Amino acid sequence: MSPSIGRQIAVIGGTGPAGMGLALRWARAGESVIIGSRDAARAEQAAETIRQRIGDSTRVGTRTGVSAPHVSGLENYAACAATDLLVLTIPFGAQATLLKELKTAIRPGSTLIDATVPLAASVGGRASRTLGVWQGSAAEQTAELVPKGVSVVAAFQNLSADVLNGDDDVDCDVIVCSDDSKALAVAMELAVKIPGIRAIDGGKLENARIVEQITALLIGLNIRHKGHGGVRITGLPGTAYRSA
Amino acid sequence: MSPSIGRQIAVIGGTGPAGMGLALRWARAGESVIIGSRDAARAEQAAETIRQRIGDSTRVGTRTGVSAPHVSGLENYAACAATDLLVLTIPFGAQATLLKELKTAIRPGSTLIDATVPLAASVGGRASRTLGVWQGSAAEQTAELVPKGVSVVAAFQNLSADVLNGDDDVDCDVIVCSDDSKALAVAMELAVKIPGIRAIDGGKLENARIVEQITALLIGLNIRHKGHGGVRITGLPGTAYRSA
Repeated sequence: MSPSIGRQIAVIGGTGPAGMGLALRWARAGESVIIGSRDAARAEQAAETIRQRIGDSTRVGTRTGVSAPHVSGLENYAACAATDLLVLTIPFGAQATLLKELKTAIRPGSTLIDATVPLAASVGGRASRTLGVWQGSAAEQTAELVPKGVSVVAAFQNLSADVLNGDDDVDCDVIVCSDDSKALAVAMELAVKIPGIRAIDGGKLENARIVEQITALLIGLNIRHKGHGGVRITGLPGTAYRSA
Repeated sequence: MSPSIGRQIAVIGGTGPAGMGLALRWARAGESVIIGSRDAARAEQAAETIRQRIGDSTRVGTRTGVSAPHVSGLENYAACAATDLLVLTIPFGAQATLLKELKTAIRPGSTLIDATVPLAASVGGRASRTLGVWQGSAAEQTAELVPKGVSVVAAFQNLSADVLNGDDDVDCDVIVCSDDSKALAVAMELAVKIPGIRAIDGGKLENARIVEQITALLIGLNIRHKGHGGVRITGLPGTAYRSA
C-alpha cells in the first residue's frame, strides 16, 4: 500500500451515495476520513456505517501525533474547518449555496476536489441531461465561489456510486483537471487509492466541463442498458496513466 | 467476416484523415466505398491510394448485380447521389454550407452518419475546445439541414484518424446516437466492420452533444500526453456492446 496521504480527507455531502462510496474506499485504504453533512448526527451515523463496513474501530495516529478516529462525522462547516483537503460530493442544486455558507470555514491554502455534475435532475429534469453553467462547468463555478488561495480540482465525477459502495475494483479512469499542478497531483494520489482506478492528468480546470458531461452520458447508458457505466481512456502512453 | 452491408458507402469529405481512415477500414472489410470530395480528381486519387493500400484492384459485384469498383472516387454531390448510405467526415466549419449544397443530391430515405465535431479550431480556436451549437450538437444541426425523410445518425467522432489509417485494431468504442432505430443499427453494423471497435447504442441523437465533446477531451489528452486517445465504456452488461 502506498503511504498515507498524510492529512484528513473531509467529504462534504458525504452521506450521499457518491460521498459514502468514496469515504468507504479511502477509509479502507487506511486514510483518515471526515464525513461532512448538514446534520452532525447523520454524519456520525454514516461514519459508524463505514467503520462497521471496514471492520475497523481502531484509532490511527495522524502526522500531528494526535490520535484521531479513522472515520468520523461532522457537520459540513466543522468538517471544512478541520482539514485542508476537501472533497465536494453534493447535488449541483446545492453547490453554490453551500459554498457560500462554507466560505469562512474553508482554510486558506486548502485543496478542494469537486465531483459535482450539473445534471438537469437538479431542476427536475433528466439525469441523462445537463444544465449549461455560466462559468463553463460546475467545477469552474466552485472556483469562483471559494476563498482566494484555495485550489480547486475537478475529479471523480464519472465513478458509479453503486460500484464505489461495493467491494469490487472500480473499472474506471479518473480524469483530473486543475489549474494548480500540486492540487492536481494530490487528487491523482487520492484517486489511485481506490483499487482499479487509473488517474489521468486532464489538464486545466476548464476541461472539467467535458468530464462532467460524460457523467450524464453514462447515466443515460446505465438507464438504457441496465449497467453501472464507467469510462476508460485508451491509446495514451503508459506515462499518462497513474495506478496504485 | 460478417455479410456485406449490401450497399455502397459514400464517405463525404473522404479525402481528409478521418474519412480516408474509415474508407480504408471499410474497403479492407470488403465493403464498397465511394470517396467523396469537392474535387473529383482528388477523390479518385484517394480511392487509388486506398486500393493500393489494400492491394485490391478487383471489381466486386453489388447487390444490384452491376459490377462496381470496390473503392471509387467522386465529387461530393455525385457521391451523395450514387447511394443511400452517407458518412459525413468534414470539418465543422464546412458542414452547414456543404449540406445545403448537397440537399438536392441526398436521396429520400438515405441514412446519413455524421462524424462531425464542433471543434473551436473551426474558427481559429483550439482543437481541444468546442463551440456551442444552437441545435445542441453538430449532428443535430445536420438533422435540421437534411431533406425530410433522411435519417441522421451520430457516430465515429471519437476515433483517432491516425489509428484508423494504420493497421492495428482500433481500441475504441463507437457510441451511436439516432432517433431512427433502423439507421442506428446500420451505423452499429458499419462500426463493427472495423477490427477492435465495439458499438454501443447511445440512444437519441441529442446525446451526440456529449459524444462530440469527448473528441475535444481526447485531442487535449493527445496533446498533453502524446498519444492517440480513444474511449471505452465499462460496466455495462455484455448485451450493451456489439462486436464483430
